[in-house]
Amino acid sequence: MKYNPLYELAKAWTKEAGENLRKSVQETIEVEFKTSASDLVTKKDRETEQYYAEKIKQHYPEHFILGEEGTVQDQDYEFEKEKVWVIDPIDGTTNFVNQKMNFVISVAFYDEGEPVMGIIYDPIKDEMFHALKGKGAYMNGEKISRLREGSLKEALISFNSFWTIPNDKVDGKKLYPIIENARGIRYIGSAALEIAWISIGRIDAYIDFRLSPWDIGAGIVILKELGGEATTLTGEEIDMTNTSTTLFSRPGLATEIRKYFN
Amino acid sequence: MKYNPLYELAKAWTKEAGENLRKSVQETIEVEFKTSASDLVTKKDRETEQYYAEKIKQHYPEHFILGEEGTVQDQDYEFEKEKVWVIDPIDGTTNFVNQKMNFVISVAFYDEGEPVMGIIYDPIKDEMFHALKGKGAYMNGEKISRLREGSLKEALISFNSFWTIPNDKVDGKKLYPIIENARGIRYIGSAALEIAWISIGRIDAYIDFRLSPWDIGAGIVILKELGGEATTLTGEEIDMTNTSTTLFSRPGLATEIRKYFN
Repeated sequence: MKYNPLYELAKAWTKEAGENLRKSVQETIEVEFKTSASDLVTKKDRETEQYYAEKIKQHYPEHFILGEEGTVQDQDYEFEKEKVWVIDPIDGTTNFVNQKMNFVISVAFYDEGEPVMGIIYDPIKDEMFHALKGKGAYMNGEKISRLREGSLKEALISFNSFWTIPNDKVDGKKLYPIIENARGIRYIGSAALEIAWISIGRIDAYIDFRLSPWDIGAGIVILKELGGEATTLTGEEIDMTNTSTTLFSRPGLATEIRKYFN
Repeated sequence: MKYNPLYELAKAWTKEAGENLRKSVQETIEVEFKTSASDLVTKKDRETEQYYAEKIKQHYPEHFILGEEGTVQDQDYEFEKEKVWVIDPIDGTTNFVNQKMNFVISVAFYDEGEPVMGIIYDPIKDEMFHALKGKGAYMNGEKISRLREGSLKEALISFNSFWTIPNDKVDGKKLYPIIENARGIRYIGSAALEIAWISIGRIDAYIDFRLSPWDIGAGIVILKELGGEATTLTGEEIDMTNTSTTLFSRPGLATEIRKYFN
């Protein structure tokens, strides 16, 4: 298949980038603040994105890069018409800094807007979740079973408690019936990792109100490959050129959750 | 020191009980419901508590057991006057069932009400947190440093989102300024594990409104040994014979959090 070489390269690069991050948690991590005291970035975010940029430029000079840290700047293209790598070099930077775990690299490849390949790698647990469209989703090379239907009363739902308090994106009260009826609420603090965990059933759904394409690019490929759902909270397709509300879920459960937001 | 043999036995028992749980996550886990659809118990909770009961009866027939599953029933004693083992065989039973990870065994020993020994063991990660009063706290035998002072703006705070919605224990709005001012909110879903994580800085504080002695018996010993705080949310000593509100935290940060509840 035509994407196989790209898929193999991306896995190898991600393994190497992840090993680098795994080593770096033993060192002192220097932190900078982006928009606020809780929006962190480190030298490692930028270095890791730069690592991918160099590899991609070398192997695929005609491809574009949509990365969280914007290390590749001089780009002018239409997402729907080009071959684009969607990269979050460290998703869960706060966990990287505070916990030295529970962060991932998220790398995806979109061809003319079509989700083709997704890799989410947790270098501390050495768990790589990866999928190529039409070829199944895997964890460390082992095939993941398709997702069973789920119901709220047996489900662990993940979201940031931030959204339950007054904010400009959502009426927090809309989350109340979910909190009341779910088996439990969890929150790890890395969107890509929460989605990866849905793929193997550690949680059942993940809700957010302001995710960026690089947070979810890989997760969309992986979940769709397993029959999972990846939509906005009102059921539309996610726009990969904007921030959006998002619901990642087992089938069945997604319908149950969306009814609280429609 | 007089408690050393007991400490060594308790660690060995816990390692063995943990290995048993680690194996059992590969099997089908049969679930029963206690008070509600989200209050689970499994055969493994009961078996593990029974394992400790037998060991304790054999080595320390004069000791009492305060266990979540109440497998030892025919006891009539005053906590403040006796030697008591405080045991949660699986803290985070929902995680045990749904995630097959993020659960722990929590075992503590209290002598005439005094917290003496605490062990919290995550068998999946093979991380054992353990402390004997006055002898330091350790993770897998390696000494843990005393906790530095912390501030809310650099802290990851853990609590169940359940408490932010209308409930009979707390005005959820009291959590709003904490959500707004903390670096981030997290929730793993096992009280004892959240406390263990505070001891090594993966999170900075854990708040709850209805914990039982077996959830926190071991965590109290470990955190106090590191200069951490373990009090009710209004700063009183935790009553080990009742459920209570609880705040586990680095020093400094505890004061900052309590001001929102006073």
